Amino acid sequence: MKRIAVILSGCGVFDGAEIYESVLTLLHLDKANVHYQCFAPDMPQRHVINHLSGDVVEGETRQVLVEAARIARGEIKALSELREGDFDALIFPGGFGAAKNLCSFATEGQAMQLQPEVLEVCQRFAKAAKPIGLICIAPVIAAKIYGDKVKCTIGHDTATAEAINAMGAQHVPCNVDDVVIDEQHKLVTTPAYMLAQRINEASVGIEKLVHAVLALC
Amino acid sequence: MKRIAVILSGCGVFDGAEIYESVLTLLHLDKANVHYQCFAPDMPQRHVINHLSGDVVEGETRQVLVEAARIARGEIKALSELREGDFDALIFPGGFGAAKNLCSFATEGQAMQLQPEVLEVCQRFAKAAKPIGLICIAPVIAAKIYGDKVKCTIGHDTATAEAINAMGAQHVPCNVDDVVIDEQHKLVTTPAYMLAQRINEASVGIEKLVHAVLALC
Repeated sequence: MKRIAVILSGCGVFDGAEIYESVLTLLHLDKANVHYQCFAPDMPQRHVINHLSGDVVEGETRQVLVEAARIARGEIKALSELREGDFDALIFPGGFGAAKNLCSFATEGQAMQLQPEVLEVCQRFAKAAKPIGLICIAPVIAAKIYGDKVKCTIGHDTATAEAINAMGAQHVPCNVDDVVIDEQHKLVTTPAYMLAQRINEASVGIEKLVHAVLALC
Repeated sequence: MKRIAVILSGCGVFDGAEIYESVLTLLHLDKANVHYQCFAPDMPQRHVINHLSGDVVEGETRQVLVEAARIARGEIKALSELREGDFDALIFPGGFGAAKNLCSFATEGQAMQLQPEVLEVCQRFAKAAKPIGLICIAPVIAAKIYGDKVKCTIGHDTATAEAINAMGAQHVPCNVDDVVIDEQHKLVTTPAYMLAQRINEASVGIEKLVHAVLALC
């Protein structure tokens, strides 16, 4: 049975992992009869957003791992515990947490840095020729992992696509129900809520991503 | 197009709405091409549980509506704004939030009370012969809505089934991939994470519940 590590960045589209993308990833992994385990970095969130008002909650701090545990029903481990030998692939759902907690794209754009544990684990998987799946905004991290014209997509957003190209990757436009596969680097990406207007649109693209990642294992 | 109101109780299995059940409800409603709108009561959660450790977080308070907004990507309304004339049915996902925030079953068992807004909206839908779907532990509220031997299920848990019967409903054992339908009262229930070991088991039962609720509309 294939074993997939799913890397979460909190719990909630505006300051953490996008919940629908995370749950749909787990659903399609389970439907494909593979084993999965959720991980998240044990670090403070960049900030807390009130998801009703959209405002930053001043003075409140939450931990990425503790909040991501909500999506994992408590069955989650710190990213520092992830051993590359135990898993066949990585999948990162999106949400602003991917661009705020796992890297600094949300604030620094193409000058962004990857969170060190995320960078290390991704580079180990890439070096071992194990596939990685990146959903929604998460493909902004692709250039920092592979560096050499790796093909990826965030859909059709021009500014984000230009930033991805400026960092050294190669953005490929893609619709919400499809994926971009870089066979050489074993990277699979799908736009999901960069484009989705309905949850089932995201589900169709994420199901394709899961199957493409499993096919590359 | 049918219009379904989905009532959330927070965000996270141990102190709010069960996230998988909530997302799967929305997914299957969307796949059935119906319109949905999320609601939650604007009230403090009973408490906050650290979903990594399982412990109560002393001194922290969170609002049910604000946390439920995470599951709804911000597209949520206060339960007090729900007009029965605008919707064809109600669906309640489970999670401990259903038993801690929407009623007091978690602490008072069969002596429980329903949150007043929840009781009022459910009684209005029942009186209008509009269907209600209750998932996981949420069927403990059935007796307070219908009162007269309404048939429902929470799966196979003996103590919970006895409490349901003691409150005046009629518990029917049911497997995770099935539903119990009370045609007379237009109530549909499914065990989901009262029994599910895997997310797709919950998905199969919730898909059946969604289709049964829509068929009763």
